[in-house]
Amino acid sequence: MDIKSSIKQIAQDAALAARKLSRVTTTEKNNALLQMADALEQNCKFLLAENAKDVVSAKKSGISHAMLERLTLKKDTIGQMAKGLREVAALPDPVGKVTSMWRRPNGLLVGRMRIPLGVIGIIYESRPNVTVDASALCLKSGNAVILRGGSESIKSNLAIASILQRVLRKTSLPVNAIQVIPLIDRDAVSAMLQLDEYIDLIIPRGGEELIRAVVAQSKIPVLKHYKGVCHIFVDAQADIDMAVNVCLNAKTQRPGVCNALETLLVHKDIAGKFLPQVANKLKKAGVVIRGCENTKLILKNIEKADENDWYAEYLDLILAVKVVENIDEAIAHIEKYGSLHTESIITNDYANSQRFLNEVNSSTVLVNASTRFSDGFELGLGAEIGISTTKLHAFGPMGLEELTTTKFIIYGNGQVRT
Amino acid sequence: MDIKSSIKQIAQDAALAARKLSRVTTTEKNNALLQMADALEQNCKFLLAENAKDVVSAKKSGISHAMLERLTLKKDTIGQMAKGLREVAALPDPVGKVTSMWRRPNGLLVGRMRIPLGVIGIIYESRPNVTVDASALCLKSGNAVILRGGSESIKSNLAIASILQRVLRKTSLPVNAIQVIPLIDRDAVSAMLQLDEYIDLIIPRGGEELIRAVVAQSKIPVLKHYKGVCHIFVDAQADIDMAVNVCLNAKTQRPGVCNALETLLVHKDIAGKFLPQVANKLKKAGVVIRGCENTKLILKNIEKADENDWYAEYLDLILAVKVVENIDEAIAHIEKYGSLHTESIITNDYANSQRFLNEVNSSTVLVNASTRFSDGFELGLGAEIGISTTKLHAFGPMGLEELTTTKFIIYGNGQVRT
Repeated sequence: MDIKSSIKQIAQDAALAARKLSRVTTTEKNNALLQMADALEQNCKFLLAENAKDVVSAKKSGISHAMLERLTLKKDTIGQMAKGLREVAALPDPVGKVTSMWRRPNGLLVGRMRIPLGVIGIIYESRPNVTVDASALCLKSGNAVILRGGSESIKSNLAIASILQRVLRKTSLPVNAIQVIPLIDRDAVSAMLQLDEYIDLIIPRGGEELIRAVVAQSKIPVLKHYKGVCHIFVDAQADIDMAVNVCLNAKTQRPGVCNALETLLVHKDIAGKFLPQVANKLKKAGVVIRGCENTKLILKNIEKADENDWYAEYLDLILAVKVVENIDEAIAHIEKYGSLHTESIITNDYANSQRFLNEVNSSTVLVNASTRFSDGFELGLGAEIGISTTKLHAFGPMGLEELTTTKFIIYGNGQVRT
Repeated sequence: MDIKSSIKQIAQDAALAARKLSRVTTTEKNNALLQMADALEQNCKFLLAENAKDVVSAKKSGISHAMLERLTLKKDTIGQMAKGLREVAALPDPVGKVTSMWRRPNGLLVGRMRIPLGVIGIIYESRPNVTVDASALCLKSGNAVILRGGSESIKSNLAIASILQRVLRKTSLPVNAIQVIPLIDRDAVSAMLQLDEYIDLIIPRGGEELIRAVVAQSKIPVLKHYKGVCHIFVDAQADIDMAVNVCLNAKTQRPGVCNALETLLVHKDIAGKFLPQVANKLKKAGVVIRGCENTKLILKNIEKADENDWYAEYLDLILAVKVVENIDEAIAHIEKYGSLHTESIITNDYANSQRFLNEVNSSTVLVNASTRFSDGFELGLGAEIGISTTKLHAFGPMGLEELTTTKFIIYGNGQVRT
């Protein structure tokens, strides 16, 4: 079979599996997830052996140290995967939930019920744990999943899929609920992205380049964010200790992730007092500051920020800093340079806290808290399949509910339209 | 300016207007809508004169009688438009509504707030009243709208836009909140559908051909339905009078619309008694029946249905009828031939009513009621901008809320992530 036909077959099988899966009870899904957790632990040696083959090939091809680290599985990582499966089993099932219901004047009882989306395609890079996480979340939400990981992790991903599918075979669940594309050819992705007849949603996870390539080709809706250029605005009425603490956390707790702080905006009335304190802490943590003219007047020996810095997602220990006239300039800056991801204001001014929450239309807007909370687990969604800065369907961190849609259900007793 | 540049300018102006519009109060929006209603009535003569020019051109180009009727405005139609604007003004504003809020263990208060999508593009055929309806719904939901109607109604649409924009100019609202594309060139639509940087959503309204052309070209998310192949399943335990009444209503009350009945499925145990009664009523209403082999055994002198009939959206006084073994066959038929639009079961069997509601994953599923209720007004959404069979974002009839998304708003008091 050629690549196109193979991928079409996978997608058709997934669509059939999705129909069956949408009718499975929560108990059946949870039992499968728990058995999968056990099976991963029991097949630990097999999984490590297959992963070792990927690691050998990857070393030969000379991938970066960071990518190699993400690729390599350990006994402990597999334990984490199993734990993740058990946690998803413990989460509430979104499917079948009636989110609201009302009676019409003619007696019709109209409600909205959550149902799975159908088939979800996940396109990601070298972390094999995504294979387990995404499978668990899609299964729990009643969706069939088609997984396409990086070519360097193909043996690990196929090994994981074979373990999970063996569990599906023993249960009443359709075995094609979880499929890993066995081809490393790039044309396989292109072929998959054309199959809007069978696949309902694509979620790409990885760098901006991967995501742009997926969006450019896809006929299927894509939920994604290109980048997170997250801002904190320290207002004139901020508690300085809190502002220092939050900025330090947002920039340095995990600088390589999308909800880390990239640009700090500081009200001119507090800049003279606040900037030296935060700069001192940031410097100790290894952060390099690139400041505007006014920042440079307060902090000596820092780099000068240029226009590109305001658009930059550094994902590194670098911070752009700008002194602003007032909250209007801060909001206008975020509107112009932001990525609709996550922004926070540090303030004790009631009116400004409300203005920031109402007027900044990023997917997550915080008052007096770190941007690092923009995360499905931290916000209480129970899980995270990704973060969307696409406004349609889901905006911000996405959990199980975002993998469902709602249909209208209507109870009548013979009503006709007049 | 060439076409591409003109359309880009319109989209950029809309994006700027959308930013302003997202911050406007409900009172300001409602006042504008009420003034627009008055302005339409006051400028009735101008509107009729411009419309008459369209009608003259349309007659010359020889468009169908049905299209000519839809194009032609009367004083009464303009009154209806004004009434529609006043009704939208009276609806609750979805923007700013906090749909849920919860506290996290670390004290963070996390909520979801409805916000406008941004810029919405509407592509439609010859009805000038869509220009008013869509403008009203987009304005109320805080979205800027770009309208592209049929070329035959260009003068009417531009006249309407000029009246609405004159009102915007007198108020605090951005004048580019409502724009009609002044070009009738087809390239204008193609250019518009590439501008995913400025336009957030496209809603096409019209025939399947128009919608497929839009989807094929669009880089922007599209909410649409291609067709409505709506089913009623008359179960063995149905109340026959109710079943006859509901089927007659669903097929004949307005046969040319997407929620009209197209295929009737009948349980074999009730077919002998039910089919002659419903056929008698349908025949009197002018409906032609195309039946399966078993239907033909009960109803003599009807046409034979072939495979194509099960896929057909007749939009006419034609009905496909199939006798089925049981509810499983009915659900399987809908799954195979349906369009995810609207399906109804007529039954007094409790278990089957629940199975139908749970297992049929069309956007609207009814028990003991006419498919004609699949409509934003009838379901109590207050309005309707369209019906989606795309599962992402909105599934089924769409009202004002479906023109919004939610952002996360978070109240903290200094929380950092550990």
